[in-house]
Amino acid sequence: MFFASDNWAGAHPAINERLMKESTRFAAAYGTSELDRAIEKRFNEIFEREVAVFFVGTGTAANSLAMASVARPGGIAFCHSEAHVIEDECGAPVYFSNASRLMPVAGPNGKMLPKNLEAAIGRFPPGSIHQGQPMLVTVTQATEQGTVYDLDEIDAISKIAKNAGVPLHMDGARFGNALIALDTTPAEMTWKRGVDILSFGATKNGCWCAEAIVYMDPKTAEDLPFIRKRSAQLFSKTRFMAAQFDAYFANDLWLELAAHANAMATRLREGLSASNSARLAWQTQSNELFVVLNKDKAKAAKDAGASFYDWPVPHDMPEPVGDNEQLIRLVTSFATLENDVDDFLRICGTS
Amino acid sequence: MFFASDNWAGAHPAINERLMKESTRFAAAYGTSELDRAIEKRFNEIFEREVAVFFVGTGTAANSLAMASVARPGGIAFCHSEAHVIEDECGAPVYFSNASRLMPVAGPNGKMLPKNLEAAIGRFPPGSIHQGQPMLVTVTQATEQGTVYDLDEIDAISKIAKNAGVPLHMDGARFGNALIALDTTPAEMTWKRGVDILSFGATKNGCWCAEAIVYMDPKTAEDLPFIRKRSAQLFSKTRFMAAQFDAYFANDLWLELAAHANAMATRLREGLSASNSARLAWQTQSNELFVVLNKDKAKAAKDAGASFYDWPVPHDMPEPVGDNEQLIRLVTSFATLENDVDDFLRICGTS
Amino acid sequence: MFFASDNWAGAHPAINERLMKESTRFAAAYGTSELDRAIEKRFNEIFEREVAVFFVGTGTAANSLAMASVARPGGIAFCHSEAHVIEDECGAPVYFSNASRLMPVAGPNGKMLPKNLEAAIGRFPPGSIHQGQPMLVTVTQATEQGTVYDLDEIDAISKIAKNAGVPLHMDGARFGNALIALDTTPAEMTWKRGVDILSFGATKNGCWCAEAIVYMDPKTAEDLPFIRKRSAQLFSKTRFMAAQFDAYFANDLWLELAAHANAMATRLREGLSASNSARLAWQTQSNELFVVLNKDKAKAAKDAGASFYDWPVPHDMPEPVGDNEQLIRLVTSFATLENDVDDFLRICGTS
Amino acid sequence: MFFASDNWAGAHPAINERLMKESTRFAAAYGTSELDRAIEKRFNEIFEREVAVFFVGTGTAANSLAMASVARPGGIAFCHSEAHVIEDECGAPVYFSNASRLMPVAGPNGKMLPKNLEAAIGRFPPGSIHQGQPMLVTVTQATEQGTVYDLDEIDAISKIAKNAGVPLHMDGARFGNALIALDTTPAEMTWKRGVDILSFGATKNGCWCAEAIVYMDPKTAEDLPFIRKRSAQLFSKTRFMAAQFDAYFANDLWLELAAHANAMATRLREGLSASNSARLAWQTQSNELFVVLNKDKAKAAKDAGASFYDWPVPHDMPEPVGDNEQLIRLVTSFATLENDVDDFLRICGTS
Repeated sequence: MFFASDNWAGAHPAINERLMKESTRFAAAYGTSELDRAIEKRFNEIFEREVAVFFVGTGTAANSLAMASVARPGGIAFCHSEAHVIEDECGAPVYFSNASRLMPVAGPNGKMLPKNLEAAIGRFPPGSIHQGQPMLVTVTQATEQGTVYDLDEIDAISKIAKNAGVPLHMDGARFGNALIALDTTPAEMTWKRGVDILSFGATKNGCWCAEAIVYMDPKTAEDLPFIRKRSAQLFSKTRFMAAQFDAYFANDLWLELAAHANAMATRLREGLSASNSARLAWQTQSNELFVVLNKDKAKAAKDAGASFYDWPVPHDMPEPVGDNEQLIRLVTSFATLENDVDDFLRICGTS
Repeated sequence: MFFASDNWAGAHPAINERLMKESTRFAAAYGTSELDRAIEKRFNEIFEREVAVFFVGTGTAANSLAMASVARPGGIAFCHSEAHVIEDECGAPVYFSNASRLMPVAGPNGKMLPKNLEAAIGRFPPGSIHQGQPMLVTVTQATEQGTVYDLDEIDAISKIAKNAGVPLHMDGARFGNALIALDTTPAEMTWKRGVDILSFGATKNGCWCAEAIVYMDPKTAEDLPFIRKRSAQLFSKTRFMAAQFDAYFANDLWLELAAHANAMATRLREGLSASNSARLAWQTQSNELFVVLNKDKAKAAKDAGASFYDWPVPHDMPEPVGDNEQLIRLVTSFATLENDVDDFLRICGTS
Repeated sequence: MFFASDNWAGAHPAINERLMKESTRFAAAYGTSELDRAIEKRFNEIFEREVAVFFVGTGTAANSLAMASVARPGGIAFCHSEAHVIEDECGAPVYFSNASRLMPVAGPNGKMLPKNLEAAIGRFPPGSIHQGQPMLVTVTQATEQGTVYDLDEIDAISKIAKNAGVPLHMDGARFGNALIALDTTPAEMTWKRGVDILSFGATKNGCWCAEAIVYMDPKTAEDLPFIRKRSAQLFSKTRFMAAQFDAYFANDLWLELAAHANAMATRLREGLSASNSARLAWQTQSNELFVVLNKDKAKAAKDAGASFYDWPVPHDMPEPVGDNEQLIRLVTSFATLENDVDDFLRICGTS
Repeated sequence: MFFASDNWAGAHPAINERLMKESTRFAAAYGTSELDRAIEKRFNEIFEREVAVFFVGTGTAANSLAMASVARPGGIAFCHSEAHVIEDECGAPVYFSNASRLMPVAGPNGKMLPKNLEAAIGRFPPGSIHQGQPMLVTVTQATEQGTVYDLDEIDAISKIAKNAGVPLHMDGARFGNALIALDTTPAEMTWKRGVDILSFGATKNGCWCAEAIVYMDPKTAEDLPFIRKRSAQLFSKTRFMAAQFDAYFANDLWLELAAHANAMATRLREGLSASNSARLAWQTQSNELFVVLNKDKAKAAKDAGASFYDWPVPHDMPEPVGDNEQLIRLVTSFATLENDVDDFLRICGTS
């Protein structure tokens, strides 16, 4: 019963088999092998346009190098106030972008409210030398709160970024889960909605180490090879990342895995909604749930071997958490077993 | 006939099997799993003392974070003038160490000459506010030129560093190859000779992605967890690196692999020394050779599918390279086949 | 009628005479002259202990280099949410401190509320690798809102910083004005209350370019000479800064000038309080006032040549600003003329 | 007898009078006053084209911000191996340019040899991801060795920079002295020879703190206001720098002062050339001399109160320095007295 995080899962067998096959060959290093090139082209098909792709080792690297590539002196990137880039990356995006700053923008359910974003950017009109200049807007899809921006919401954010003359970045650490939740395509969820740069995460969804930065307009990525190398993110045997992506994309494995994770989350949501001992703290659409659970049930689950995180109660919690309750986060993954879900539901079920 | 670089090799089957086994399990992320802890302890045994170990994704990351951890304002790190850190890492060590500088120190065969190092450091006495202050000495073992510092040479460098009050770092991208060449132990080649920080490379020697920074005195590494996270080098599924190290160290696999690479290099050296069409540009001790080869033979080898790099002729080349000759670099690895060596020798043999 | 800012004032005649005298001499450069040394010692007397003093060119430089000197990887400095360091320095403190971050702490009247500071720091317990580590608390004295932390309030902030194991910095761009407002001594307002590092500003109070960073414990400033040089803040003819401080301190000129500025502010406060057309937006103690003024009066004042800034209405404004009113900021200085104050009051007086 | 450095001189009376006059006025801060604007325009006249001008506090700041403005990831700036930027600024240009690197280029007499520059740049062809990419060429005019690039030499350097697609920067800490030495105009010595960015120094030549960065093409300077503010180089009372430039340019005072300094150097050169106890180490054209002096004479001069620096003997010294001789540097300035020159010559004269 592993619900602590999707990065507690291992790697999918198909990924491993592909790695195994790759391991017996010799090939050129530092991203110059035929396999590297082939997989970069695969991204073109998936995004229905020519994109520039750069493999990196971590999601934090993807976000940070994306920010580095658009850094401006005194630059400011706008993100949700609870976004991973501002809360959980130890300042890496600030560090890699030549000390550009991150400005938090509030909004319910982990999503920036467009009017708040507009107001935040509006505080930095051209020539605000003492304050700085906007350089990026970044959204997380799916969000840290388990929600998903729908296409119209991305559109609205995108328009504000365009008006401000800055690019739009999407942190897609859980890109596949969001895609399944919206039942849409990579193109529709990104560049057709004005997303310019994407952190495309595969590690949480079945790989063990495969992240990519995708530039929808390759011309904007001309310095990225140098940024990546200088940032110590150009792996010598990068083709082993390419190999993971190869298996990840083959036969739409990645969509299948994300769909499974989401389905397991739905099963949890439905089961817990029906329980007297639990309620959903807020509605989510991806593979994360936030649940207000009876403390005794939570303890029973932990005693039975379930792993999950207690979660700090946000200030805008719709309904208060009672004394005998606690807020927890549950995350499902490609590897979550239906049996584990059902065991957990049984333990946390009707009292 | 792959002699271009040891990072063109794939991964050893034992590494892959261990990865496969790891992939089916759930475990805590970000370096907190039991396996991570167990492997960190394994390093204690290998180095015969308690060390602090941090897994990172690339050799450049290991070198750069080591430099970051000793950075001082106006700081200067001293390295050989052809060291990887100054020549081949796109400025990453400078970048990660808050714009500390690298100062090249000359010396034959890829090794800093102690008197040159002493003179170089001597230009920065305490209080050289306009010039800067020494912060690190770094040696590469084995060197970029295929040579190996013997223990006395490390001692001599170490004494100069200690006199200057700065730590000594070793770039061990080919640590195993050097160890085999010297027939010594990790402890003897490092802290017993005054090495304080080690970039311990395993990628070139049979892993696909496994590098570690080793601090001989854990107290000096207290900020490293933050440095690593901020540098985007804390992998979520870091236990897959731990797993590679697990297999790498089991039954001394790593020493066996390095010994094989070195043996293949020796076989090449001996074969080419006996040829009329080739001569060793200079003596090497590790898995790299630099060979002056008849141009026709070089072409024949390439035509037969051999991969290797032409190498720029250094200014201090002992004997000149003739018009019908060229300088090439050959690198062997854990995966080099004896047959390939013999084929290559046959092509480049006596004319 | 110049009330836009105290940095619109020129320089006091005594400062200029001292500069004139200095200009005819030759002396050693880069802070090594006898005058430099003598003035550094003068700071010891003023602060009643041995301090380390570094002259720099701007208040932003003083704040930024102070932050640089305590920077830690993933480091976080805590400041009031409207502090100059976070709002008005284009990210310089972040930039100079190796991409450390500034964390805003709310509180009324421009002062951090101790419980808010405690909560903010509490979010970063030891080992918060993904979030970062506290490195500094910084207060502004006098604040951007014209208020002044009283000694007990500094004590309270200081205790929280000490508990967190981080130093306390004071941005004293208007140090003299605060000192006069509290009727206390430099020692009492700083190290006796736990302040470790001070940005000591003299530019706003009668010099044209004289700022200093003061370390209450010289041992903590050992790297500062390198930080200052690397930050391009070591002036060649730094003795011209020393000369300004020489005149500034002579016969307590600086206290006299600050007292004058404060007195002019008091005169404005009293006059405007008695007016039907104006009211104080909130109480201030230094040389800044925030006034809600009848729009017609404001226009009349501008037409008569008065300079002052319209000010954005803060969200926690005690009483709303009416449609025919506006919020303005008035700043007095060492050079403010009593006549100008009276002229301004006449224009803005009872309708 | 002050010959230690031109920054040991004070400030010219005309500069001081202008400062005095400025000090009595109120005016807008942070570079927005009418005087600031007027002086910026004065630079247009002096350079015979519309330029963008930014006042900063130190020569190191001017050089560093110039480098920051052209920084590229993995970027490399090429300079003479003994240039101030690489030798004497504690790494500031590296620090401010986001860890770009400085690559030393050798050449006699403090001047880069064009063929050496060409070879140095040639090591970084497009796509040298592991090595980095050229971003700037920078020359010092007059050089650290007291020599001056003639116009043809600047042309030759400039062509190489243009071919490499990188801008050319000139460190003009002693711009006036070079101008007088070449008997040419600012336009001829800069943009007409391909110089794109100039560090225009006035501090050494009669001001006490007045440096400017001049962009020959204002469009290339659009980010400079943010760079300057973020670098803590936007002075609040920047008009006091403008005032210094105002007096500096009035009636060509600056040319007069530089001519005086150069004439004093010529007088020293001529006198010492005629002495049996001294000889010029190499020919210089600006206000610096390097002299091989009899040790007894050197001691006698010091005893008589002369200040000058002993200088390390360069490796390419034309004639060796004898056991009873030493190499010294003499620098004249706008404030050097003819009497002092003659006294010094008398002491160091024919034995």
